[in-house]
Amino acid sequence: MKKADIGLIGLAVMGENLVMNMESKGFTVAVFNRTTEKVTKFVEGRAKGKNIIGAYSLEELAANLEKPRRVMMMVKAGQAVDDFIEKLLAVLEPGDIIIDGGNSHFPDTIRRCKYVESKGLLYIGTGVSGGEEGALLGPSMMPGGSPAAWPYVKPIFQAICAHVADGSPCCDWVGEGGAGHFVKMVHNGIEYGDMQLICEAYQLMRDYLGMSADEMHDVFAEWNKGELDSYLIEITRDILAYKDTDGAPIVDKILDTAGQKGTGKWTGIAALDEGVPLTLIGEAVFARCLSAMKEERVAASGILGGCTEKFSGTCEEKKAFIENIRCALLASKIISYAQGYTLMRTAAKTYGWNLNYGGIALMWRGGCIIRSVFLGKIKEAYDKNPELSNLLLDEYFKDKILSLVPSWRKVVASAAMAGIPAPAFSSALEYFDGYRCEKLPANLLQAQRDYFGAHTYERLDSPRGQFFHTNWTGHGGDTSASTYTA
Amino acid sequence: MKKADIGLIGLAVMGENLVMNMESKGFTVAVFNRTTEKVTKFVEGRAKGKNIIGAYSLEELAANLEKPRRVMMMVKAGQAVDDFIEKLLAVLEPGDIIIDGGNSHFPDTIRRCKYVESKGLLYIGTGVSGGEEGALLGPSMMPGGSPAAWPYVKPIFQAICAHVADGSPCCDWVGEGGAGHFVKMVHNGIEYGDMQLICEAYQLMRDYLGMSADEMHDVFAEWNKGELDSYLIEITRDILAYKDTDGAPIVDKILDTAGQKGTGKWTGIAALDEGVPLTLIGEAVFARCLSAMKEERVAASGILGGCTEKFSGTCEEKKAFIENIRCALLASKIISYAQGYTLMRTAAKTYGWNLNYGGIALMWRGGCIIRSVFLGKIKEAYDKNPELSNLLLDEYFKDKILSLVPSWRKVVASAAMAGIPAPAFSSALEYFDGYRCEKLPANLLQAQRDYFGAHTYERLDSPRGQFFHTNWTGHGGDTSASTYTA
Repeated sequence: MKKADIGLIGLAVMGENLVMNMESKGFTVAVFNRTTEKVTKFVEGRAKGKNIIGAYSLEELAANLEKPRRVMMMVKAGQAVDDFIEKLLAVLEPGDIIIDGGNSHFPDTIRRCKYVESKGLLYIGTGVSGGEEGALLGPSMMPGGSPAAWPYVKPIFQAICAHVADGSPCCDWVGEGGAGHFVKMVHNGIEYGDMQLICEAYQLMRDYLGMSADEMHDVFAEWNKGELDSYLIEITRDILAYKDTDGAPIVDKILDTAGQKGTGKWTGIAALDEGVPLTLIGEAVFARCLSAMKEERVAASGILGGCTEKFSGTCEEKKAFIENIRCALLASKIISYAQGYTLMRTAAKTYGWNLNYGGIALMWRGGCIIRSVFLGKIKEAYDKNPELSNLLLDEYFKDKILSLVPSWRKVVASAAMAGIPAPAFSSALEYFDGYRCEKLPANLLQAQRDYFGAHTYERLDSPRGQFFHTNWTGHGGDTSASTYTA
Repeated sequence: MKKADIGLIGLAVMGENLVMNMESKGFTVAVFNRTTEKVTKFVEGRAKGKNIIGAYSLEELAANLEKPRRVMMMVKAGQAVDDFIEKLLAVLEPGDIIIDGGNSHFPDTIRRCKYVESKGLLYIGTGVSGGEEGALLGPSMMPGGSPAAWPYVKPIFQAICAHVADGSPCCDWVGEGGAGHFVKMVHNGIEYGDMQLICEAYQLMRDYLGMSADEMHDVFAEWNKGELDSYLIEITRDILAYKDTDGAPIVDKILDTAGQKGTGKWTGIAALDEGVPLTLIGEAVFARCLSAMKEERVAASGILGGCTEKFSGTCEEKKAFIENIRCALLASKIISYAQGYTLMRTAAKTYGWNLNYGGIALMWRGGCIIRSVFLGKIKEAYDKNPELSNLLLDEYFKDKILSLVPSWRKVVASAAMAGIPAPAFSSALEYFDGYRCEKLPANLLQAQRDYFGAHTYERLDSPRGQFFHTNWTGHGGDTSASTYTA
């Protein structure tokens, strides 16, 4: 048997499906799993008769690989990745390539990339999105790490990844070090945001407009034919139509407590670290936390009144309001991506990455959870101006959001009056109004900080970088704060 | 000369004023500063003729202290603290006490406390709030660390701290390890929130109601006589009245770009780590980030229309709207403290602290930046029920917030319609409506996660802890996700 083109460690659902995907594209794959029974089960089962080689030790895996060896780990993020790197370093050679395809936190990938390079090998940390089906049929892939490794990995990754209609692969080189996992993290944060936006649209229809799952199914089916055409809208449409064994919509029977795996949280922390207002994703993460407090919410609803006021309009007005919700969702989505892209731009400066923003939109265009027609417009915006500082300043998105603003305002105001929570719709609108506000109230805030902490301020009538302190009380010192800050 | 009761390292503005405060309460203080010229300048200047001993080395400082020695560092948070701990360990003895009074990050304090204890000494990390004037006349102090150190430090701290009207000191033992610095961090986060709320009230009056600084001065003066009576409202009142040399209000000349020192950011990160929805402080931190993007905002305001619609009501209606703003501010403030207290409760479980929540309110009641009449009500709530799970469930706060809700909704809805950013008012309302919502839309979100990632869900008609997976598409696997999560 010929040697394998690539080795894969970790035969859980994502690993197995990636192997099947690679094999189907003509690659021979050697596989290893810590619990070796899984190797036997896989090669004698689903992999039987395919160009898939089972290995029962890392030595055997290494011996079965073409050089330079490419070994992809699909194992649980965290210590397991470090452990396998150590073990692989013992059986691989300089020039070989170690790939981490799990959901690693980008600072870990930065550290591991340096470490593996210091041993003379190459490293890639790659985001892989698309779930089980994506892994099998074509995921979105976001590789970063050692640039010298990319030419050896590119033919495999660009063969197995998703492709958009014109044949472009949803995988391209992202950047050095942890850039790939950073972009994957932002992807996941945006996924949190997109899901929250759909949930808010759903709650407004369910609790304010009093619509049934079937009626909402029709709305999402309609939305999926237009600008909102996307995987998440599509599966929402299908979920709303899905009936339980008793014929009732299954969505009505599911407990409203959302889980999370931490990547949304990482995105929020990265935004706080970079000083980038990422309000919508922040609210989406916190909304999941709030949903998890089910017992407390049930108790509080009895004490604090519970939702909500119902919509009291004509059938025509209801239809118009549904269209307003669509506009609010689309406008908020534009804000979420504008914020996410700003985070990537800022982090790229911090970490010295040269990111291709249009390319990132293309990688997300297919294969992954947030895939959508919308991302095509983002790609166009960055193709036109790779240095675009904010998506809202692009001609298309500017015109689009301005056309949505009146409806969006009505939805946010109505939700506030009716007592229906819509934190992402509303934080998005707040960001829009803050971003386009020439003069925020932070002048007062600076005065306060100077008053109690002598932190100094700048003036509108003086050049930037010139700092003033006022002795507000007439007593106390004229000196400003130095090392200690309250 | 008798030996000193306490040593203090770091003669910047906070350190100097703390020394003067301690001396004025009858304590003898030995002082050291890395740049020793500052010691000379201080003992020959402001400290002349007082019971203050200048030391020109740490050996000299140690030699001048009563045993067990108490040494308080007022140095820049970060490496300098670790460096001084090392140097102090060389000149101190087992049983001596090292105190960090800077704005250290609580995980550092947890680490340092363990380390110093491992050397046989005791450690205290204490929050000190109140700025320059507080340090001199009575700050709010939040000490935590080695419980055995507290009896030796208590007489000094409770003498120099602020006291409320009945004589109670605004300083008490917070808890073990990093508890003191954690509570100080939350204090700072709440300070971010309080300042943002005042700024939003100010912007609505300035940009929506078109009021002058003098008119707003009158409003804040009025507000400061009632439920909102607090240090920050008081200084806002005074700032609005302060005139520049040309007689114009100085606040109008200050640049609207807010600075930050990172403690607000830490609070947001802690909330994300603990999974506690801390939306208002999060928005306040992000609002500062947005304010810092001045040039981009000015450009965007030209492209995206800038604020805003003006209020078009009668004089009477304007007066009523100002009262609505007051209600929105107070209601949002209740939410902010409810969120902050939930964060402390959750962290206390994580880190094994036994926090005294009423005591914390008392510590903040005087001396510090967020001191207010309001905190007296919080103390009462926790005195009544130390296990109160959420401030909103206390009888007083429940009745109060329900009485404010109609006005609060009007303000949020009006700001949204007029295009005036009010992110903290609005995120607070969203939290209120989410918290009191028995059934959030997270059932749909769980269906989505199960659809694309086989993450499973719980059902309303089955016991908690029982997980279900639906094969939504009819193809693909029936197995749920295990090690890999998208």
